[in-house]
Amino acid sequence: MAEPLFRRLALIGIGHIGSSVARIAREGGEIAAEVVASARTQKTLDRVMELGIADRVERDPGRAVAGADCVMLCAPVGTYADLAAAIAPHLAPGAILTDVGSTKQSVIRDVGPLVPEGVHFVPAHPLAGTEYSGPDSGFVSLFRDRWCLLTPPPGTDEDAVERIAELWRRCGAMIERMEPNHHDRVLAIVSHLPHLIAFTICGTADDLADESRGQVLKFAASGFRDFTRIAASDPVMWRDIFLNNREALLEMLARFLEDAQAMARAVRWGDERYIEDKVERGRKIRRSLIELRQA
Amino acid sequence: MAEPLFRRLALIGIGHIGSSVARIAREGGEIAAEVVASARTQKTLDRVMELGIADRVERDPGRAVAGADCVMLCAPVGTYADLAAAIAPHLAPGAILTDVGSTKQSVIRDVGPLVPEGVHFVPAHPLAGTEYSGPDSGFVSLFRDRWCLLTPPPGTDEDAVERIAELWRRCGAMIERMEPNHHDRVLAIVSHLPHLIAFTICGTADDLADESRGQVLKFAASGFRDFTRIAASDPVMWRDIFLNNREALLEMLARFLEDAQAMARAVRWGDERYIEDKVERGRKIRRSLIELRQA
Repeated sequence: MAEPLFRRLALIGIGHIGSSVARIAREGGEIAAEVVASARTQKTLDRVMELGIADRVERDPGRAVAGADCVMLCAPVGTYADLAAAIAPHLAPGAILTDVGSTKQSVIRDVGPLVPEGVHFVPAHPLAGTEYSGPDSGFVSLFRDRWCLLTPPPGTDEDAVERIAELWRRCGAMIERMEPNHHDRVLAIVSHLPHLIAFTICGTADDLADESRGQVLKFAASGFRDFTRIAASDPVMWRDIFLNNREALLEMLARFLEDAQAMARAVRWGDERYIEDKVERGRKIRRSLIELRQA
Repeated sequence: MAEPLFRRLALIGIGHIGSSVARIAREGGEIAAEVVASARTQKTLDRVMELGIADRVERDPGRAVAGADCVMLCAPVGTYADLAAAIAPHLAPGAILTDVGSTKQSVIRDVGPLVPEGVHFVPAHPLAGTEYSGPDSGFVSLFRDRWCLLTPPPGTDEDAVERIAELWRRCGAMIERMEPNHHDRVLAIVSHLPHLIAFTICGTADDLADESRGQVLKFAASGFRDFTRIAASDPVMWRDIFLNNREALLEMLARFLEDAQAMARAVRWGDERYIEDKVERGRKIRRSLIELRQA
């Protein structure tokens, strides 16, 4: 067994992602010798102790981070500015502050200026998650063979970056470094826009008159069901992601809406070639994914 | 073992759905004593014989239906008018003509007027299918516990309707009768619109500049992947569905685009409540589906 990477890991927020990291740390012992968890509600903390996935829980994030050599923000990205302000005075010199948020420019904007001298800030984003949330939903294989993107600002201590990379490798993830703005554009199209669309179509269906609406549920298996799975995710987390990746998301959404309008026009005017071409491209992309073993 | 329902079943088109019906008929023997398959290409027919899923193959649909007491159209709905014209003179008196198309008003419009006196026309739509296509892709459990919707026009012989219902029950399906226009509206929202959106977003991603585009595939697991699965379906089949359910599809698409625009506006102006409410509705619908055991 390898030596634990950190003496004490403080998880600020312990939902789907945080509790998966906690489980991995507790199970293998190679990430941190001690895990401290903080959460917004006492109920969550009580549950964390019941589950036995942390050594200690602290309602107050400042107390949670005191003496930790690694602090990981695992809360919705909209809370990061307040959390950073609350923990900054308590961060130990030489500690590494990292996070798991889906939007990286906003995290650097909100957290970066509050990081004390001598603390290393390494923003990260494990591309993993299911539609479930809360401390009960985590599991040790969540990050296995998934990507974790690191977006350290220029000048970040390379040893700190490498230690966070190693943490995620020990969780089973593959590592890639990326510019924060590039990260936000890629995530806008591969994740944020698909989620926005899935939420929207569920709303569109839910607005139908009563008879059709009941039948939407009854006959959902025909395609709609896959959208509802994506749409079952945590509301506050997704609200925060949309608002904190506004520009890239609105750009991708505008492109998509233009394309959907063009498709509507092709359907209205019976443009067979256009429709076939679009459907063929979907197929081609799926084939590429299968070749890349991402499907 | 029950007596076969039909003496001879002619399948016009033998792709994913047709070859699944053929396999069920050959395996259990309770649907038809003899299965004749027709397809557009000799290659498909050769493959059908290799697979051993039909007793006989006929390139010419007229020859295929001669002497059959049940004829099932299993080709893309855009071919139905031509197919109906080709087979009409060869249909046996008392035979039942049915289909599996995803659009029912167009099928009744295209096929209905060509059905000879004494032949019973029972439009049907099994809500089943995967993203795969072709005679190799069928399997005997495809319809198990799935709905099959029957949309017989007023005045259809009730014995004929019941025999088609029984055919699908023997395939494992559950039966529901529906008005054709209501069918087309429900399918527009549960199936046709989700597919159109999935094809569209694949195109939007494929149009991105080269660097982001490569990364779309690399990081697809974050939501986009589920759309590509839906988008991997047969191009001609879907083109025909869109063009043959034009009005209902355009109405649902217009509703969706309004909702997506409203979501864009909420993201732009930071309307937290609106976004949370939409995400919460997605969750609620997913929960309803799970309660209905459709998920």
